[in-house]
Amino acid sequence: MRTQVAIIGAGPAGLLLGHILRRAGVDFVLLEQKSREYVLGRVRAGVLEQGSVDILRELGLDADLAERGLTHHGIHLQFAGQRHHLDFVDLVGRTVTVYGQQALVRHLLAEHDRAGSDIRFETAGVDPHGLDTDTPFVTTDAGERIDCEIVVGADGYHGVCRPAIPGIQALERSYPYAWLGIMAEVAPSTDDLIYALHPEGFAMHSMRSPEVSRLYLQVDPDESVDDWSDARIWEALQTRLGVPGWTLHEGEITEKSITPMRSFVASTLEYGRLFLAGDAGHIVPPTGAKGLNSAIADVALLGRALAAHFGGDDAPLKGYSNSALARQWKVQQFSQWMTEMLHVHREVSDPSARAFRYRSQLGQLEYTTGSRNAQAALAEQYAGLPF
Amino acid sequence: MRTQVAIIGAGPAGLLLGHILRRAGVDFVLLEQKSREYVLGRVRAGVLEQGSVDILRELGLDADLAERGLTHHGIHLQFAGQRHHLDFVDLVGRTVTVYGQQALVRHLLAEHDRAGSDIRFETAGVDPHGLDTDTPFVTTDAGERIDCEIVVGADGYHGVCRPAIPGIQALERSYPYAWLGIMAEVAPSTDDLIYALHPEGFAMHSMRSPEVSRLYLQVDPDESVDDWSDARIWEALQTRLGVPGWTLHEGEITEKSITPMRSFVASTLEYGRLFLAGDAGHIVPPTGAKGLNSAIADVALLGRALAAHFGGDDAPLKGYSNSALARQWKVQQFSQWMTEMLHVHREVSDPSARAFRYRSQLGQLEYTTGSRNAQAALAEQYAGLPF
Repeated sequence: MRTQVAIIGAGPAGLLLGHILRRAGVDFVLLEQKSREYVLGRVRAGVLEQGSVDILRELGLDADLAERGLTHHGIHLQFAGQRHHLDFVDLVGRTVTVYGQQALVRHLLAEHDRAGSDIRFETAGVDPHGLDTDTPFVTTDAGERIDCEIVVGADGYHGVCRPAIPGIQALERSYPYAWLGIMAEVAPSTDDLIYALHPEGFAMHSMRSPEVSRLYLQVDPDESVDDWSDARIWEALQTRLGVPGWTLHEGEITEKSITPMRSFVASTLEYGRLFLAGDAGHIVPPTGAKGLNSAIADVALLGRALAAHFGGDDAPLKGYSNSALARQWKVQQFSQWMTEMLHVHREVSDPSARAFRYRSQLGQLEYTTGSRNAQAALAEQYAGLPF
Repeated sequence: MRTQVAIIGAGPAGLLLGHILRRAGVDFVLLEQKSREYVLGRVRAGVLEQGSVDILRELGLDADLAERGLTHHGIHLQFAGQRHHLDFVDLVGRTVTVYGQQALVRHLLAEHDRAGSDIRFETAGVDPHGLDTDTPFVTTDAGERIDCEIVVGADGYHGVCRPAIPGIQALERSYPYAWLGIMAEVAPSTDDLIYALHPEGFAMHSMRSPEVSRLYLQVDPDESVDDWSDARIWEALQTRLGVPGWTLHEGEITEKSITPMRSFVASTLEYGRLFLAGDAGHIVPPTGAKGLNSAIADVALLGRALAAHFGGDDAPLKGYSNSALARQWKVQQFSQWMTEMLHVHREVSDPSARAFRYRSQLGQLEYTTGSRNAQAALAEQYAGLPF
C-alpha cells in the first residue's frame, strides 16, 4: 500500500498527529505494536498545559476534556510543615487542566474511529527503510510493505525508529530515586495539586476526577510494590503530606506501580524522511508534568510542518528538530529543577554534604515561595512555555 | 580591660560592625591577628548589592564609594556564542556597584582611625572564654584579658570563634573546579560584567576601576598559577569571552591567583554570648558575588540587634542566628544555581550524562534570558535580597 505519512506508534503523540494530518488533508496510516486494549489501559500523565488544552480545542478534540477536565488555578508547594499556594492565574494569567492521558487516548481513538482512520493495532515487526532516500517504506512481520513520503516515529522510548538513525546520541541523566504511584477511590483532599518535600522523601497529591485521587511517594529505585502494603503507603502519605488542620482522606487503592526517574534527550529528532515525536525523542522525570505535554508540543509543531511540506513549503519541516529540541531543553531543565528541589538526596554519602543539599533545597523553596518573580517563573513553566 | 563588645577579626564584617556599634554608643574593641598592611592588601570581592550600598550610605561611610564606585545597571550572560544583557533597573529597579573590598576596608579603617577606635592588629592567640556565662572574656598570647558582655566572631572561615561552639555542624558543598583570577592594567572592555559559559569552561570579565580589569577563568582545582603564563591566560580569555564584533583588550597582568569554590554554612551563628558574622559563619562560591554582601547583611542585622540588646531589648539578638541563616540559605541556593549553570562539569564521567549536563545548562540560560520573569528573579537575587 501507499500513503503520505506512516506514523509508528498509536500513543497520544501518534493519535494526535493523525488528527492534525487528517484536518490538513494529508493521508496517513497509524501502526501500533500493542493491542487496542493495552493502549487504552495505560495509566500515565494527568496534567495538561494551557497550550495542550488550546490545541485540542482548536482541533475540536476537547469535548470530553471540556466535560471532565478539572481546571486548576495553581499548585501547592509544601516544605518545613507549611503549605504555600501559587496562583497561576494571578501570576501569569494561565491555568492547567487535570485530565488523564488515558481519557485523552480514549477520546482521540474514538474520534479516529468516527473518521474512519487507518489504525492498525498489534502490528508486529514494524521496520522503517530507505529513510535517507525519497522513497522510504515500512515493513511488518506480516510481510506488508507501506510506501510513504514521511515516517514519523511516535513509538516511545523503546521504539524502533530512534535506533534507525545512524550515529544518534543519547543525552541522559538518571536520578537515584523512583515514584511509587497509587490510584485511590477517594475524593481528593485538596483543590490544587500538592508537591511536598519532607525529610522522609517527596510526596505528591494529584487526582484524576472528583472521585479518584492519585498519590505519589519517593521510594528507592530498587524497591518493589510488594514492599509497600496499603497501610504502609497511607502512613507514609499521612506523614509526608500532613499539615495541621488538614485531613488526607484514605480510600481503596486500585492501582500501584513504581516508575523510575530519568531525563533523556536524543541528539536529533530527524534523519532524512524520519521524524521523531514524544517519548521516542525525549523523556522527563514526572515532577513537572511535562511528558505528555512535550509530546503534544512536538506533534503540534510537526503537524504544522508536515502540512506545510505537503503544501509545497519545506522550511518548517527542515527546522523541526532544532525547534522542538530548543523547547525541549527548556522543559528538561525545568523538570530537573523541580525534581531535584523536591526530592531527598540520600545518595549523597557525606553527612555534611547531604545536610547542605537538603537545607539548600529548603532555601530554594523559601526563595521561590517568597518571591513573586520566582513564583511567576515557576508558573509560566508549569502552565507551559509557548508551543 | 573591660568593654561591651569584643569583635574578633578586622575584615569588612568586623570593621563595619564597629562603626554601627560606635553610632549606637556601644563600646567595643577590635582584635585582629594579622597586620594592618596584610588586612589592607587582601584582594577580594568587588560587587556591592544595592542593600550594601544603602547601609554604607546610612552610616555615612560612602564618601569613597560614591566617588569611585561604578554603578552597574545589569550583567551580561553569554553562551552559545551570544551575549545577552539583563537590565536590572528595568527588571527590578535596582543596581549593583562595582567597588573593591580592598577599597572598602581602607575606607572603614581610615574612618576608625578618625574616630579613635580601639583596633589591635597583630594580636596573637586570641581565645574566647565563658561564652555560656554572663561574663565572657577574651585572652591573648600577650597575657591580656578583655572582659566583655558580647563576643562577635568576625574572624573568617579559619578563625577561632566557630570552633569554640560545642556541637556546631558544618553544612558543605564542594565544586570540582576553581577560579584563576587576574588583575590587569587595562580599561575594561565591557560596561557591565560578563558571565560566560563556554565549552572550554566558565569565564568572567569584571573590573575594579575605569583603568583596571578583573578577569576570571574556570580551571581545575589542582592547577597552579605556574601552569598559566600570561599568554595562555589571554588566549583562554579571548576564546571563552569572544563574540563577533567585540574586542577584549589585553594589558599587563599585575595579580594572579587561584581560588577554590566551596559552599559552607554553619548550623548556628550563636552560642551563649558569642555571635558569628561573615565568613566565620558561611562561605559562598564567588559566582553570585555574595560573599562580602552576606557579611554586610549579617553585620547590619547583628548591629541593630546589639544596639537593641544594650538598649534593654534582647529579642532581636535572640533571633539573630535564625534570621541571618534564613537569608543566607536563599543566598546559598542562588550562588549554587549561578555557579552550576555557568561552569563546565568535566567531573561527570559518563559522556551522555556530561553532554546532558552541558546542554541542560544551555537550556537554563536560554530559558532565563528568554523569560522576563526568570530575568527578574535573577536580577532581584543578584542586586540583593532585603537585609
